[in-house]
Amino acid sequence: MSGNPLSLLEGVRVANVGAELFAESIRAQGGRAAQVDWKPPAGGDRQTAGIIERMSACDEANERAAERLQAARPTWIDVATAKDVIPGMQDRMILHSGPPIAWERMSGPMRGAVVGAILLEGWAKDEREAERLGANGEISFEPCHHHSSVGPMAGVTSPSMPVNVIENQAPPELGGGNRAYCNLNEGLGKVLRYGAYSPEVLDRLRWMREELGPALRATIRAMGGLDIKNLIARAIHMGDEVHNRNLAATATFIRMTMPHLADAVGDGKLVARAARFISGNDHFFLNYGMPSAKASLEAMRGVENCSLVYTMARNGTDFGIRVSGLGERWFTAPAKMPIGLFFPGFRQEDANPDIGDSAIMETLGLGGFVMGAAPAIVQFVGGTPAEALRATNEMYGITWTRSRDYTLPVLEFAGAPMAIDVRKVVETNVLPIINTGIAHRQAGIGQIGAGILRAPEAPFREALLALAEKMGV
Amino acid sequence: MSGNPLSLLEGVRVANVGAELFAESIRAQGGRAAQVDWKPPAGGDRQTAGIIERMSACDEANERAAERLQAARPTWIDVATAKDVIPGMQDRMILHSGPPIAWERMSGPMRGAVVGAILLEGWAKDEREAERLGANGEISFEPCHHHSSVGPMAGVTSPSMPVNVIENQAPPELGGGNRAYCNLNEGLGKVLRYGAYSPEVLDRLRWMREELGPALRATIRAMGGLDIKNLIARAIHMGDEVHNRNLAATATFIRMTMPHLADAVGDGKLVARAARFISGNDHFFLNYGMPSAKASLEAMRGVENCSLVYTMARNGTDFGIRVSGLGERWFTAPAKMPIGLFFPGFRQEDANPDIGDSAIMETLGLGGFVMGAAPAIVQFVGGTPAEALRATNEMYGITWTRSRDYTLPVLEFAGAPMAIDVRKVVETNVLPIINTGIAHRQAGIGQIGAGILRAPEAPFREALLALAEKMGV
Repeated sequence: MSGNPLSLLEGVRVANVGAELFAESIRAQGGRAAQVDWKPPAGGDRQTAGIIERMSACDEANERAAERLQAARPTWIDVATAKDVIPGMQDRMILHSGPPIAWERMSGPMRGAVVGAILLEGWAKDEREAERLGANGEISFEPCHHHSSVGPMAGVTSPSMPVNVIENQAPPELGGGNRAYCNLNEGLGKVLRYGAYSPEVLDRLRWMREELGPALRATIRAMGGLDIKNLIARAIHMGDEVHNRNLAATATFIRMTMPHLADAVGDGKLVARAARFISGNDHFFLNYGMPSAKASLEAMRGVENCSLVYTMARNGTDFGIRVSGLGERWFTAPAKMPIGLFFPGFRQEDANPDIGDSAIMETLGLGGFVMGAAPAIVQFVGGTPAEALRATNEMYGITWTRSRDYTLPVLEFAGAPMAIDVRKVVETNVLPIINTGIAHRQAGIGQIGAGILRAPEAPFREALLALAEKMGV
Repeated sequence: MSGNPLSLLEGVRVANVGAELFAESIRAQGGRAAQVDWKPPAGGDRQTAGIIERMSACDEANERAAERLQAARPTWIDVATAKDVIPGMQDRMILHSGPPIAWERMSGPMRGAVVGAILLEGWAKDEREAERLGANGEISFEPCHHHSSVGPMAGVTSPSMPVNVIENQAPPELGGGNRAYCNLNEGLGKVLRYGAYSPEVLDRLRWMREELGPALRATIRAMGGLDIKNLIARAIHMGDEVHNRNLAATATFIRMTMPHLADAVGDGKLVARAARFISGNDHFFLNYGMPSAKASLEAMRGVENCSLVYTMARNGTDFGIRVSGLGERWFTAPAKMPIGLFFPGFRQEDANPDIGDSAIMETLGLGGFVMGAAPAIVQFVGGTPAEALRATNEMYGITWTRSRDYTLPVLEFAGAPMAIDVRKVVETNVLPIINTGIAHRQAGIGQIGAGILRAPEAPFREALLALAEKMGV
């Protein structure tokens, strides 16, 4: 009567049923091993390879930065109005996703979201006037990322919107105490963040501002904070990769908040409306996960000689990264096109290039990086579970460390691949995998699918060379 | 711009980090393949092997029976008082888990639960009087399974308790229309079903009877039914095996019911109490999963020549099975001891033998049978994810079919191994794996851990021979 009976299978005759699947799985994994074609470091570029070799001072810096990332303790502490809490938020300012961009270069869904926000704020009376305002310089556009914020897809955040407030409750000596902000998730389909701005979209945003936001504020204040790191860790054990699959995280969020919501709000009808809205949205948790990743990554910004990426973001036109040792500087390239599964009636040709701050999840080492532990996601973004597992294993090759808190049961509880090192990306030519929603390329339509893509290579290479130069290599 | 970018990994250099884990995984799987030591059918018992060979008439019967199991559509339709809805429930009757058993042979936790139920019903004023009543024949004890019911652990169900009502909404020609019943889950630790009956246990049961049950009744009536098959399928995609791991199922249950609970109940404080109780219990969903499995399996009871198992249950003293082609007849053996992980302060020596109707989950092909898709469960029951996957693959060898609705993402969405065939169990000597909670062997204490065990072999062999005899083989 000792040991686990599962260990006592030796000598048991195993029938064939099911073995074919296993064989496939072995072949898939074996096949991967077989195709590890050696390629010269940095794609055969001897000069770059030499530079990387001389950047060993990054190691100690990365170790210190990664320790801050490990120590991060993102906690949901409040819901507040954007203009009251987001640092530097001003009247007639609209925050957007990705690196900086002017109206002229904005993609369709980004312009659509801006029009919607202008109408919501009452700065224009109709679409035409809103477009004119957007174009004539009367609105200041700034990246969410310049204001301790993130937003999925267009990421458009205007002054009167309610935002989640996340605080990194790590000790100050480990970079803690900082806060990050994110608007509330509207659901899928015709929603502002995908570029829709019809009356139903604006009505929903008004209700979120007037009823949902205050209800959630009362809830979280009654709770005295909710540990989002713990919630994400649990959701990963339930097969979420917490970027495009937030099913378990959203359900667990509801489980943890509902008793307090009911207590704090009191009125059963209002509780029911809030519960119905949150329950009706598989992705509601995303707007807690994103600012938590942001608050975690900000803790390792600005570490001298550090070659770790603390921002990856897209505005629908450009993809950009920022590297710890290079401060606020963006390195950009044209945004690529996600490949994926489309809702009925839409197809690849309708897709807008990659958009949104949600790649902050991959920057932390979640999303596409942990797809292997979230095999059911392939039903939403395409591919197979074996490919998802392969993707996760590949990401270990470009990350500095493994998370101590986010573990992957299917890999015997190995930590998630965490903290992208620009040196490793350039050295291995392995580019970060990102799961993403797909917006229609025209304003006013909304989400049309979800898929997967690789980050473009150029920003990583340019950042590497800039860091080398700064280090005097 | 076609195909999935995950498929385009050929030629990419893969770094070594993480490969060790993969190698282990391959070795684990390869190791399993290597140890498929051939053993003679039926353990070398030529007579039994010959009987099995002559039972080919089972095939057609099993096919028909399995079709009913596939078609089952268990739906939560109501919460009612046991004596009002459970067929044959009478005053001074207590239902219990497993095969029939008299007071004299009941284990400690079973007696403890009976004492608690007698006190709850007000049939005795104290523990001593309750024990006397239990012993002197004034209470009739019958298996839940004889009354279209199931109950976890002691399974004790008394007339005034609220019960979940599950209806199999398959067409009548596929065995649909039947109902199954199960009490409500009390949580872990000191609870009636693990043999505890202190005042806090009884107070909780009274609150469940007077407030929680009616609140859930109002909820499900407002909802007009909840498709439990769909909910289980989703939970499996979120890493539950829905026997000992019900985290995702419980959270999803809360997600789906809360808006209706708030609407139907109205009073925020009462909603909060109900929500807090349900949210505080990782296993709340178990008492929906079990009657759903029961309602599904009942649809294939009594099919002539059918060698599929439709009941596996334990009362803490005996383990018993029932086979479709043999009607109501039980085949029993002494209950075995689960091996597992214990709560602080308890150890293996404190454990009671295997107890509860919850093996109905494994009978359907879930629980221990799908552990491979629920790798995080090993933190609760012991073992490793690789062993869990091996267990699932082994169960394909003793089951008749694969579920069309319950699929396992990690096995590329293969259907769960479904419907145990007594012929295959005897032929292969592979015994069903059961995940289970572990009760203290003494009355009045409660749960002390959770673990895994194998069903005993004798009932399967005896049932096989009885079926062969009935078939004239």
